This record gives sequence, structure tokens and C-alpha cells, in this order.
Amino acid sequence: MTRIRISRVLAQGEDGQSVTISGWVRSKRVSKNFAFLVINDGSSQTDIQCIIDADKPFYDDLGRANTGASVRIDGVLKESPGKGQAWEVQVDKLEVVGESGDGYPLQKKGHSMEFLREIAHIRGRSNTFGAVYRVRNQLAMMVHEFFQSRGFQWAHTPILTASDCEGAGEMFQVTTLDLKNLPKTKSGDIDYTQDFFGKATNLTVSGQLNGEALALSLGDIYTFGPTFRAENSNTTRHLAEFWMVEPEMAFANLHDNSILAEEFLRFMFTQIAERCEEELSFLGKHFKNMSSEQIRELGAHSFGRISYSDAIKELESASTKFEFPVEWGIDLQTEHEKYLSEEVFKKPVIVTDYPKDIKAFYMKLNGDDKTVAAMDVLVPRIGEIIGGSQREDRYDVLKARMEAHDIPVDEMRWYLELRKYGGCPHAGFGLGFERLVQYVTGMGNIRDVIPFPRVPQSIDF
Amino acid sequence: MTRIRISRVLAQGEDGQSVTISGWVRSKRVSKNFAFLVINDGSSQTDIQCIIDADKPFYDDLGRANTGASVRIDGVLKESPGKGQAWEVQVDKLEVVGESGDGYPLQKKGHSMEFLREIAHIRGRSNTFGAVYRVRNQLAMMVHEFFQSRGFQWAHTPILTASDCEGAGEMFQVTTLDLKNLPKTKSGDIDYTQDFFGKATNLTVSGQLNGEALALSLGDIYTFGPTFRAENSNTTRHLAEFWMVEPEMAFANLHDNSILAEEFLRFMFTQIAERCEEELSFLGKHFKNMSSEQIRELGAHSFGRISYSDAIKELESASTKFEFPVEWGIDLQTEHEKYLSEEVFKKPVIVTDYPKDIKAFYMKLNGDDKTVAAMDVLVPRIGEIIGGSQREDRYDVLKARMEAHDIPVDEMRWYLELRKYGGCPHAGFGLGFERLVQYVTGMGNIRDVIPFPRVPQSIDF
Repeated sequence: MTRIRISRVLAQGEDGQSVTISGWVRSKRVSKNFAFLVINDGSSQTDIQCIIDADKPFYDDLGRANTGASVRIDGVLKESPGKGQAWEVQVDKLEVVGESGDGYPLQKKGHSMEFLREIAHIRGRSNTFGAVYRVRNQLAMMVHEFFQSRGFQWAHTPILTASDCEGAGEMFQVTTLDLKNLPKTKSGDIDYTQDFFGKATNLTVSGQLNGEALALSLGDIYTFGPTFRAENSNTTRHLAEFWMVEPEMAFANLHDNSILAEEFLRFMFTQIAERCEEELSFLGKHFKNMSSEQIRELGAHSFGRISYSDAIKELESASTKFEFPVEWGIDLQTEHEKYLSEEVFKKPVIVTDYPKDIKAFYMKLNGDDKTVAAMDVLVPRIGEIIGGSQREDRYDVLKARMEAHDIPVDEMRWYLELRKYGGCPHAGFGLGFERLVQYVTGMGNIRDVIPFPRVPQSIDF
Repeated sequence: MTRIRISRVLAQGEDGQSVTISGWVRSKRVSKNFAFLVINDGSSQTDIQCIIDADKPFYDDLGRANTGASVRIDGVLKESPGKGQAWEVQVDKLEVVGESGDGYPLQKKGHSMEFLREIAHIRGRSNTFGAVYRVRNQLAMMVHEFFQSRGFQWAHTPILTASDCEGAGEMFQVTTLDLKNLPKTKSGDIDYTQDFFGKATNLTVSGQLNGEALALSLGDIYTFGPTFRAENSNTTRHLAEFWMVEPEMAFANLHDNSILAEEFLRFMFTQIAERCEEELSFLGKHFKNMSSEQIRELGAHSFGRISYSDAIKELESASTKFEFPVEWGIDLQTEHEKYLSEEVFKKPVIVTDYPKDIKAFYMKLNGDDKTVAAMDVLVPRIGEIIGGSQREDRYDVLKARMEAHDIPVDEMRWYLELRKYGGCPHAGFGLGFERLVQYVTGMGNIRDVIPFPRVPQSIDF
């Protein structure tokens, strides 16, 4: 018989149904007359309890069915008399498929998150990481669902790029040159014409610039893929490799952009609370996170709106003492962002029209010549979760801004040309996907929301 | 009024409906009494025709609405008297949002594919690339739909890896070291402890090994993300950066794997023919590709099955003269693969149990000690489209195979441990996503099925 997932048994099981279940032993209790095996197969937060009568011929095999062993069980579904579980399996046949070996590292006692990171190849079998990974999968699919249902197309923008002007931080270099024997030009520089692509190559820090080209062909697109920053930041909020969501809309301005961002986040909050209630309830209990009710609430109300200039006034008149002093022109710090969303608005808020000097070259210059059509979405507990802007669509203005930012105009000719050939107002934003997973799951360290985290000095697995 | 997508107008328009359309001018015809503008906004293969009466005040603006210009049109939907179009727009207001500039490169006349590759930032506005990109988006979403509906979780496996043993070809090196001033160890080697991750780092050639760890936690997973090969192959079938789909199932053997691969491909063929009929019909006409009817047919019948050994017998007894001689032990060449699927089975066929010496170290050794539980899916016209296997789940056998293949066992300890701690039979396969897009769209060159292709000596845009 083909195995049936435990999630399916729990959702659609019927009393007396014959089932085959395969999974890993979470715990075992053996007594004189019967034994209990608690099994999880990764499909669901809830385990299933299996009961084995002592007269079964395979009763002795139970010795091998230790915590972590993989088993296959044929049996019959019964309504469970136990508290908090709807079904249990009366076992007819037990096969220990793979023993758990000496020193199986994932025991029932709680392990530290640091230890679990050292066994990243196995931590997915724990309650915590099973929950996080299922929430991650669900959030990822909801990204697609949201944008596709609105007619956005998923665009695969390149990871490898010769451009280093995206201005979002340090980049990783990619090469096939033999580092022990680097080819040199006559003038003694490295001869990149002999490298794979014929020029120095990096890992992308954003798909936006390519995304703009595709939005100006297909209308509305979004990217959703890995992105890289070579920042030497050993924090709980930074990864060297992370996933970004970057929608881009043609024929759209900052207002349209802020509506999209708000509708997107409200959809994510409302729906994840609905779809992963068991996982969020487990995580909420163990990690002092928001309850699924609180997450749902975040999506239930419209977001606040405030301009950067008014936000500065709010901060200046605050009675709170900030570590970083406030004046017009500063980049908002997390403490400021949290104050605005937690204290002033008591909900997510979108701040618009930041000073041009603290924002990227591609953002549309406003009429005041001092601010750009940028926006950040700030949420309680963490501050900024989304950053975006209307893009500068005037050829001459963009060219001047590029020159002012020392962007090599020649190399970026194609990007400028998007403003020359049927250009139009367009806008988009970026969301660091792990930040969202972290926010929703309450994981304190971003290394715990991606299966195999990449951070400075750490690339095992 | 918010713009409405042309795809929506065509599907759900009503006579007399007021609409706002934004898009790019495909062509213009001006006469004394009225003018026609043909508009496309990237949402649909079919353009929409807009009619402007000569008495409109903005009639003179038409001079600026050249091919490639972006426009915004307010008007009323009318049933069209023209052939092959259901709707046209009677224009009330026209705004030229962005002119197309002198020398707009995408003129109505046909351009060569080579030329279009040189304007990759704009080629998405052509009929051909609009079609390819929409088919690509649809296929990508169907990958998710297929696996998610079967309870597989989308797993984000890392791009950056310290492992170079995946054995699937040349790798790109990733570094933050200053190449002009490389740190050296006392013995004169490059000192990778000073590199970002503290050791030599590469771009992944496959997410499989990490995917196995996740399948052995979550049950069934699939990866779908970018993958890299630094092979210096300037062909129509190779990209340095491409997207792979790699499902992995716990508690599954080669038979389960071949069923999954067959059901997956049949779903893709049947559904894409349904959902992108307009695009496929356009491409079929222009690129001598299969018609959407032929693509649907591929999915309508069960696939053939044959063992490698029997396939060799078929090839040996063929009257066809092959360029590469056939004998047991050879790696099948495209000519052999095409013969098997086109001549012997006349449909897709799954070849199983290849000689161990031509396959990767992680494939499960069969009882004959000569073959492994591998499978390739071969399709007419191109040959292999999917490769997969049951994985070796016996600790000792795998360790011996790794040693025989010079795989550093120490570094891969975590991978071996998956066989020690609750291991189980598991299996999976890999599909090069661009090969599938190429197959379905009929594009002769793989560079034309990804928006910004990365190939040797070419990394513009």
C-alpha cells in the first residue's frame, strides 16, 4: 500500500480506515501489554500515536525503533480517546526501515538553537524547524498566489552580473580564473578578458534593474529568488544569501506602489494565520511570538501613511529619548521606525518621500528637488520590512543622478534606454523574504528561518 | 481610472464598457478621417486595436505615438467588425506617456534572433519573446502547482557551497578576497581562512544533496531555483546560469520516482497546451515547433519503460547507422535517445538501471553490482529531459562509493549521516527548466528562453 501523509490522515481520516504511514519515531513508550510509538513524517505539526499490542510477532522489533528511527507502519485508524489527538493507529505491521544509530543527536529534551544549527541536516525533524519550514513554504507559495492572481508574471532575473552599481552593499566576486596563476595584462592588472564572461563578474544584490526592463515589456512582474550581500555582519538579522521578492509595475506611481505593498502584506498576514494556525500556535507558545490572532490582526486594518518630513516632526516631538538624534535628513534607525509604528500609529505605517541624499540613484526625484518618491513599510516589533520607490523615468534626470553617484553610464546604457524607448512611470519594492518569515514565526535569529544559512565564516552543509 | 489589462479586456470585455488601457504602440495607420493604433501591454499575445476619429482634439498628438511609444488610452469597448479580433476601442482620450525616440530598435519588420539578443532589455516587447516569457511564467507556476497539490514543499537549498563534489561539471568560484593582493599561507597557498566563509566557495551545480536532507525531514520536497555550470560550451543547449527543478521523496524507490516523473511531464504537456494555446499557436507557426495539439498528445499517453540493457539491445539491432557505436557500458548519445523515443516507442520513454560506471556516486547500487537504480526520461526531438535515481541509502555502500569516486568523506560527513540516523529509501530527479521551456516553445537556442542569458564571454544587461 502507498504511504499516506499524516497531515492527510488528520484532515480526512475515517474510523476503521486501513493506512500505511511512514515517518520518524518521536518517542516510544513500552509496557507489558502494549507500546506507544509517536510518529511524525514532516507533513504536519501534529504527530500521530501508534499502538502496538504486546502479542504482535514484531513486538521485539520495537527495541530498534528508537527516537529518530524511520519506520513503516500498516494499521487501522481509530478515534483516539487521548486528549488533543483525533486519531491513533492500531498497528498490524511494523517495519524499522532505518535505525537511528548510536548518538542520534536529536533527543526529546530541548536543544539550544546554536546546537541545532550545528546539525542543520537533521534539525528539520524537530518540532520547531518542521514548523518554520512549513510556514516558509506556505509564505513562499502565497507570494506567488498574490502576484499571479493580479496578473503579475514571475520573472527570472540573473544572479550573475557584471554590474556593481546597484549600490546596495558589498558584492561577491565570481570567477573561473585560476587564483594561483592569475593572467595579467601588460600594465599588470588582472586580465579579465580571460575570465568566463570576459569581464569581472559579481553575484547580484537585487533583481530590480533587470526587473524594470521586464516590467516595461510585460506590464507587471515580480522576482522571487536568491540574492547576495558580502557584508561582514555577524548579526541576527543578516544573511549573505537570502531570498528577495521584488515586484515591479509599469504605468504605476508611488501611490499605486504603496497600495500594492499594503495589500500584499495584509494578504500575507491574514492568510498565514489561517493556513498555518497549528505551526504558529506552537511557535507562539515557545518563542514569545505574536499569536496567530495578533498576526491576523496586523492584516485586518488599513496601514498608516505619513511623509518622511511629518515623521521627523513626530519623532522630534516625542517624549521618548532616542539613542540616535533626530533631524531632517537622517536615515531612520530601527528605534525610530518602531516608535512610529508602535507608538504613533500602533499598526503598520508607510513612510514616503525620503531625502534624496539617503536613497538610491534610481528613485524618482520629487518636484521639491530635495526628496524622492521612496517608501518604506514599517511594522511593529522590527521596523522596516519593505522598501520601494517610483523609479526615475526621465532620461536626463536619471543620467544626471547616475553621474552624480559615479554610476558608469556607458555600462548601464541599456538601463537608461528604458527611459528613451517608450518609457513610462513605473514603481516597485523589495521584501527580504527571510525577514518576513522571521517576523511571522518569531525566530530571534534569521539563521533559523532558512534551512542552510550562509553567514561569515560559516558554510557547512 | 485604473488601467485594465488587455488580457482581461479580451476575456471579459462588454460592449459599451469604458476602459483605460496602457501599453506600447505596435503599429499605427493614419488616414484622413480616422486612425488606427494597435496596442500591446504584455499581458496577452493578441493586441488590441484602437480607433481615433479625426475630429478629436488630440489627433495631432498621433505624430508622437510611433511604434514603441507608450500610451494611455481612455475609450469605449466595441465589438470589432475586423477579422480575428473580438474587440476594439473607440478612443476618447489619448496620452503619449513616453515617446519611442529616434532609432527605436524594435521595428515591425522581422529581426534576427541574434539581433534581438543584443537588445535583451527590449526584446520582451516583441511577439516572440512576449510569448516565450508568458509560457515560461505559466510553466514555472505549473511546477509549483503540480508539486504543492501532492504535498511536496518548496525547499530553498543554498546557492553558495563549499562542496565541489557534486560531480556534475565545472564550478564557478566565489570570493571576497582581493585578487590583486591574495593572502598566502606560510607554505605559499592561498589563505582561504581570510575569505568570506573561511574556505574556498563555489556556486552550486545542484540542490540535490541538501534536498535529500530536507526530504528526510519533511517527507517530500522540491527545489526550484538557479543553478550554475562553468562549462565553456558555446552551444544552443547550454547556459552557465539556468533554473533546475529537483524533487526528492522520502520512502520512495525508483519505481515511485519514474511514476512521479511521468505524471509531472504529462501534467506539464497537457496543461500548457490548454493554458497557453495562443502563445503556442503563434510560436508553432513561426518556429516549426510542435502544435499545441501535438504537445497535448505527448501528455495523453503513458510513457514507455525499458531497462538500459534492453535499450542497448534495441540500438544494436537497429537498422539506423549511428555516429557513436553502441555497446553495453556506453553513455547514451542524443542520437540514441532520440531513436529510442522516436522510432522504438514513438513517445516519451523512461530508461532505467544504467551501468554504475557512467553515473554519479550517490545512485543506489543494484543487486547485480553492475548497474545503479538510475532513470532518464527521453522525449522525441531532443532526447533526455529528466535524469534521476533512487539514492544509495546504505551507509557502508555509500561510503565505499564515495571513496572510490575521491569524494572527501570528512567534508561530506553530514550527507553520510543521513544514512545513519533514520535513513530510508529515497529518490528524486532533476529537470533543467530551460530545456523544458525550449522543448515546449520550439526555440532553437536556449538563450532565447531566459530573459537575460549567461553564456561564455557574454554577461551584458
